[in-house]
Amino acid sequence: MTGWLEAIDRLARERAKAGLTRQLRPRAAGDGVVDLAGNDYLGLSVHPEVVTAAGAALSAFGLGATGSRLVRGTTGPHAELESALAGWLGAESSLVFSSGYLANLAVVRAVGAVCDLVVSDAYNHASLIDGCKISGIRTAVAPHNDPAAVAALLDAHPGRAAVVTESIFSVDGDLAPLAALHEVTSARGALLIVDDAHALGLLGHRGAGGVAAAGLAGLPDVLVTATLSKALGGAGGVVAGPAAFIRHLVDTGRTFIYDTAPPPAVVAGVLAAVRVAADADDRRAVLTARGAEIAARLRSAGYPVPDPAAGVLSVPAPGPEAAVAWAADCRDRGVAVGCFRPPSTPDGSSRLRLTLNAGVDGADFARALNVIVECAP
Amino acid sequence: MTGWLEAIDRLARERAKAGLTRQLRPRAAGDGVVDLAGNDYLGLSVHPEVVTAAGAALSAFGLGATGSRLVRGTTGPHAELESALAGWLGAESSLVFSSGYLANLAVVRAVGAVCDLVVSDAYNHASLIDGCKISGIRTAVAPHNDPAAVAALLDAHPGRAAVVTESIFSVDGDLAPLAALHEVTSARGALLIVDDAHALGLLGHRGAGGVAAAGLAGLPDVLVTATLSKALGGAGGVVAGPAAFIRHLVDTGRTFIYDTAPPPAVVAGVLAAVRVAADADDRRAVLTARGAEIAARLRSAGYPVPDPAAGVLSVPAPGPEAAVAWAADCRDRGVAVGCFRPPSTPDGSSRLRLTLNAGVDGADFARALNVIVECAP
Repeated sequence: MTGWLEAIDRLARERAKAGLTRQLRPRAAGDGVVDLAGNDYLGLSVHPEVVTAAGAALSAFGLGATGSRLVRGTTGPHAELESALAGWLGAESSLVFSSGYLANLAVVRAVGAVCDLVVSDAYNHASLIDGCKISGIRTAVAPHNDPAAVAALLDAHPGRAAVVTESIFSVDGDLAPLAALHEVTSARGALLIVDDAHALGLLGHRGAGGVAAAGLAGLPDVLVTATLSKALGGAGGVVAGPAAFIRHLVDTGRTFIYDTAPPPAVVAGVLAAVRVAADADDRRAVLTARGAEIAARLRSAGYPVPDPAAGVLSVPAPGPEAAVAWAADCRDRGVAVGCFRPPSTPDGSSRLRLTLNAGVDGADFARALNVIVECAP
Repeated sequence: MTGWLEAIDRLARERAKAGLTRQLRPRAAGDGVVDLAGNDYLGLSVHPEVVTAAGAALSAFGLGATGSRLVRGTTGPHAELESALAGWLGAESSLVFSSGYLANLAVVRAVGAVCDLVVSDAYNHASLIDGCKISGIRTAVAPHNDPAAVAALLDAHPGRAAVVTESIFSVDGDLAPLAALHEVTSARGALLIVDDAHALGLLGHRGAGGVAAAGLAGLPDVLVTATLSKALGGAGGVVAGPAAFIRHLVDTGRTFIYDTAPPPAVVAGVLAAVRVAADADDRRAVLTARGAEIAARLRSAGYPVPDPAAGVLSVPAPGPEAAVAWAADCRDRGVAVGCFRPPSTPDGSSRLRLTLNAGVDGADFARALNVIVECAP
């Protein structure tokens, strides 16, 4: 048996050969790069009200929450944020976690207490897949965005089931057929769990998200999760749903109970962001216009992309090397764009992933569009 | 089949009958409560240098990191913190996660790429247990703090194995026999993974932790994890070890790759805390003195507790109701103490859990001691 580090090195060489080495690139504050890669859709991470609220809580509470939520970690801002999120999402109750990943682990595991099958969309996020795995419940993977296939899986199952999907899928930015999925689940006594991370703040009345936009807010058989780190410009995650289910998470959720609470300053900043986001129809209008503009430009450059359903635009590239070169050329010209290759893409294709940000200056956005098209392979 | 909410309600009634309902108690800033329940061991969550550094990064970067570490989430402070943590811990390299829970999930899963057995201490934290579960590797639970039992499990296993333990155990505050465990693992070509969450900043030269105190810092067959939310007063988690392993986490760690990066302000605050903590022998001396004082007081009140090995003191209570009443009486008199009951205690006993905090005012600490003894059942 060789040493463990030799074994780790061998895996690294295999990844390098397959072009799968990843690189961290620290950025400086005010680096002037136009951000079409992050998830700060509404530009709220730098909104004055958000920064001011976070700073005030930092002064009042100090940095960390100093303990788990049930010990010393719950502060006034935590309770206020949970109330504000529930109100915004139209849910009975909500619970905040220190990351969206941990929220997703918690919700899928928790439904395992009352369900014995999870039907999971083939394109679901890693955190949902891990939630299925850690729950220990039997998991059936359904073809992407296919309510009929979900119905068939549920019909073949005698017990109680949960169906897990994203609203806006993180890689391609496409929207799940949420109303059709709910018709399928509600007719069969199944639960519908929706990760609304990429739609919260973007879709629905006052930005209440994809679930709200589909008319499913507050239904007793729908659970919503989201991150607080995308349109809300902060960090953390949330689960929203019936109060009885939220109580279940408080009493039994391992990633809730055994985790340090998110910092009061972060929570207070996100609370301010919820208030700004609910009133930010102007920013949402900017996003919609920019999404249409960028899609039109790419189509006229020969890339057949649809208008984005929310803030993510996925542009097919000829191959992984071309995608990497395209993104690198953009970066060299001061524009950050995402580049997704296998195995991060669910369908094995390579693509540029552009995300909209209403906080980007109009002239910078126009310049970035030119750069993306000029660098196209 | 009854509805799912009825099933959730039935579980809630069972928990209530067993006395296992948990309650969130939001605290206000400056509530005057003496904190002997949180994990802010060195009082750094409110240290001026920590708060100032976090505030400066908040102004410079805004609130959220706006993306995952590999997309837009890595900032200068992230890279500086990873370098500072590696230096402090005496490791070749380190990687920061948005929570200690996610760091532990990552490290156990990652060793699964080169190991086919994990030996896990019976009293390990939920995040380590979940790490074993999510890794999919065969897991053997070893009796608590028993190197001979670990040796026997390794000897019975032909392949490569990893042994997972905490240094200071979170519930009882006892110290693992790390040097003896490493003798067992190194003689058998096994890895040793140590969660140093409750020893970092408290034990070892310049507070470098329990692994450093045991003389194991920087060894190529030792991996260290820790939270940044306890003695460092912030939030997040870290994995430290050989550079090749850290690269493996960057390339393959799902809870690293698919999670929003921790906020720059939090990271910058923790970076300042690392510098303060390394020079805080004075605060560590206060902790040691307070630990001895509180243990002596409890012993003279009839509770046979040893001096704490670090910052956690576990006091046996006659039963779950007595423990709850003891903690509630303390809280009513302005002293926050922890109360652990089954199933949160690994051995099924009930107890008060006291944590030391060098930031608590001396007079407040003396008063808190009186309150705890006076409220004893």
